[in-house]
Amino acid sequence: MTRPREALVDPLDAFCKDTDAYVAGRIGGVLSSLTFAAKDIFDVAGYVTGGGNPDWKATHQEAERNAWVVQTLVNAGASMVGKTHTDELTRGILGENAHYGTPINPKAPGRVPGGSSCGSAAAVAGGLVTFALGSDTGGSVRIPASFCGLYGLRPTHGRIPLDGILMQAPSYDTIGWFTRDAETYARVGEVLFQTQIPAATSSRIVIAEDAFDEADEMVRDALLTLAEKVAALARSSTTERLSPNGLAEWAPQQNVLQSQEAWDSVKDWVDRVNPRFSYWVSERYHFAVSLTKTDVEEAAVMREQIRRRMDEVFADGGFVCLPTAVCPAPLRGEPTSQKKDIQARLARLTCIAGTTGRPQLSLPLGEVNGLPVGLSLMGDHGSDEELIGFARTIEKELAG
Amino acid sequence: MTRPREALVDPLDAFCKDTDAYVAGRIGGVLSSLTFAAKDIFDVAGYVTGGGNPDWKATHQEAERNAWVVQTLVNAGASMVGKTHTDELTRGILGENAHYGTPINPKAPGRVPGGSSCGSAAAVAGGLVTFALGSDTGGSVRIPASFCGLYGLRPTHGRIPLDGILMQAPSYDTIGWFTRDAETYARVGEVLFQTQIPAATSSRIVIAEDAFDEADEMVRDALLTLAEKVAALARSSTTERLSPNGLAEWAPQQNVLQSQEAWDSVKDWVDRVNPRFSYWVSERYHFAVSLTKTDVEEAAVMREQIRRRMDEVFADGGFVCLPTAVCPAPLRGEPTSQKKDIQARLARLTCIAGTTGRPQLSLPLGEVNGLPVGLSLMGDHGSDEELIGFARTIEKELAG
Repeated sequence: MTRPREALVDPLDAFCKDTDAYVAGRIGGVLSSLTFAAKDIFDVAGYVTGGGNPDWKATHQEAERNAWVVQTLVNAGASMVGKTHTDELTRGILGENAHYGTPINPKAPGRVPGGSSCGSAAAVAGGLVTFALGSDTGGSVRIPASFCGLYGLRPTHGRIPLDGILMQAPSYDTIGWFTRDAETYARVGEVLFQTQIPAATSSRIVIAEDAFDEADEMVRDALLTLAEKVAALARSSTTERLSPNGLAEWAPQQNVLQSQEAWDSVKDWVDRVNPRFSYWVSERYHFAVSLTKTDVEEAAVMREQIRRRMDEVFADGGFVCLPTAVCPAPLRGEPTSQKKDIQARLARLTCIAGTTGRPQLSLPLGEVNGLPVGLSLMGDHGSDEELIGFARTIEKELAG
Repeated sequence: MTRPREALVDPLDAFCKDTDAYVAGRIGGVLSSLTFAAKDIFDVAGYVTGGGNPDWKATHQEAERNAWVVQTLVNAGASMVGKTHTDELTRGILGENAHYGTPINPKAPGRVPGGSSCGSAAAVAGGLVTFALGSDTGGSVRIPASFCGLYGLRPTHGRIPLDGILMQAPSYDTIGWFTRDAETYARVGEVLFQTQIPAATSSRIVIAEDAFDEADEMVRDALLTLAEKVAALARSSTTERLSPNGLAEWAPQQNVLQSQEAWDSVKDWVDRVNPRFSYWVSERYHFAVSLTKTDVEEAAVMREQIRRRMDEVFADGGFVCLPTAVCPAPLRGEPTSQKKDIQARLARLTCIAGTTGRPQLSLPLGEVNGLPVGLSLMGDHGSDEELIGFARTIEKELAG
């Protein structure tokens, strides 16, 4: 089914211009009247999944069926009204695509929307759709949620079926979505998790001191104040340092292991097609090629250490509270060298959920100099519904 | 001055489609009635020099004046009728450009034209122009000359002014040109060298045995037969091995040193613009970034050894005879991994002139299975005119 192209108003450059993919929601479903967008890594039957790279698009076939998550939402009544821009093959965290441009961040004009689910975040933040699908491998839902002032969950790894999506790194890939409010987040979550979202509070909040220390001073101060309010809603709270030697030591192992998987996913195609990438993206792949067996083995050892440590942190249940990002959205068009520094700092916070497979929800509660900054709650494996339920409680209580 | 776009017939995809650069030759010059094309690294006043990369083109200004070589040829009466495709920023040896496509090799359809001066070679081989300008840093005139059955000179380094060209690696960059016959080669050479091309023979021919050993068996056999005929035209001839341990040991040092200079030429722009490159080209730059101080120092030591050895070879004067390329033109669209192997083998022969700054002229004398293969003569520094003069003699004698 095709939508008239002019029906889609897109002042934010959020949507892919080279597709008119549209799937009408089933009439009478629980999500009827809601519209959503899907990052262009989700298959829509009859359309080529572009993945943010024109050579990927030119060398792949039309999808035969909708991605599981698209079909599930459509069955529930929501209408998929367009595909949105992504960093090339999801290899980016800022939302700048050298082939297709950078969606406008409606909450921070002149700044990046965050990526790789950049178009989806921009479309929701700008009110073009009710919600939008993204993916989070190394932060690609959480970071744009923080930069665009949205709710955005990285679910428990393996919780939502990945059928029909363009994978990056299977050990890390997850599907998430963006909304402007917690209530809508819960409605979509009930469909995707196929359960009820409980009216929830938290038994215990762990304020991750070293995670707050990584953030810019103004971000840390603004979010710590909020974290204390959130902690007051829980039955108990505590402040802990997660990492024995600082989070700067934790991030590189995911970069190594994820990069290696990402390269494995594309290397045969790269060899065959010699595709065009932005320098930034090619550098990610060359980094993977340059890794030694020792690099990978050492990364795997560190991954196990982090997993064991985070199992200890979650042994008493509850949620860990941390900043989603170390900074508000950076300016658009920064030099690549600066982007690398920003990415490395962002990874210190995003790697914790990524490495341990735990769910993390970014809540659009903070603001610094008029720019959104997200506060995150991380739960134990499988606590996705409780996280969303608690977010709904927080939204009501902090607004009240 | 603008040429009507439709006036340029281009069945070979040799010319840049996004420019109508044209410069009429001065009336009455010695090259009047000749047309030529220029690789899109030569400045033409009023046009942006594209360099085979759309992001380079989009981020640079129109040239204020013609490149020295273009102006010199126009002053001599030749008309510049179009700009031709190049490998991206001259970083390639096969002539396949991921942004703009691959010119057709009219002498070997289905095979690459060779690069990076691919469009210029195709345009001359297909008879679209009388001659065409290219550049040779690591083989970019000699290889397409061999693959397309043309005359093509890498001049003595520093002999032809490089003003107004997009440089790759200053220690290696040279300007060359292509023709279908030696007589025309000499006419253009007299203008560019601003001297006479002598009616020349050679005092001595050195047949470089190890260079012939590097070539595919059929190429070696075909070109050795020709080499003996060429040697018979000289006053004396000898067979020597150039390298003590084989030419495979000689090539990597140029790859290291040239790659490092090439990266130095573009790295600030890359950081600022985050340009799109084919994976192949980005890999060349990442190789440069990965080099250690020791890599560079060891390469410089080997460069000196090669220079000293080749000074010995040329101590008694004369020309060194070698295959231009180890193989005929490879098929178009080979996987990147195979291209790397081919490039590494080609470099074993091209590196000798590149490393020592000596002139090398490829003569279109050989054929293997209907495909052109070039025989090369390398002269001592400054012997460019003698090389061209001897090529004219060879053409007459071997045709006679």
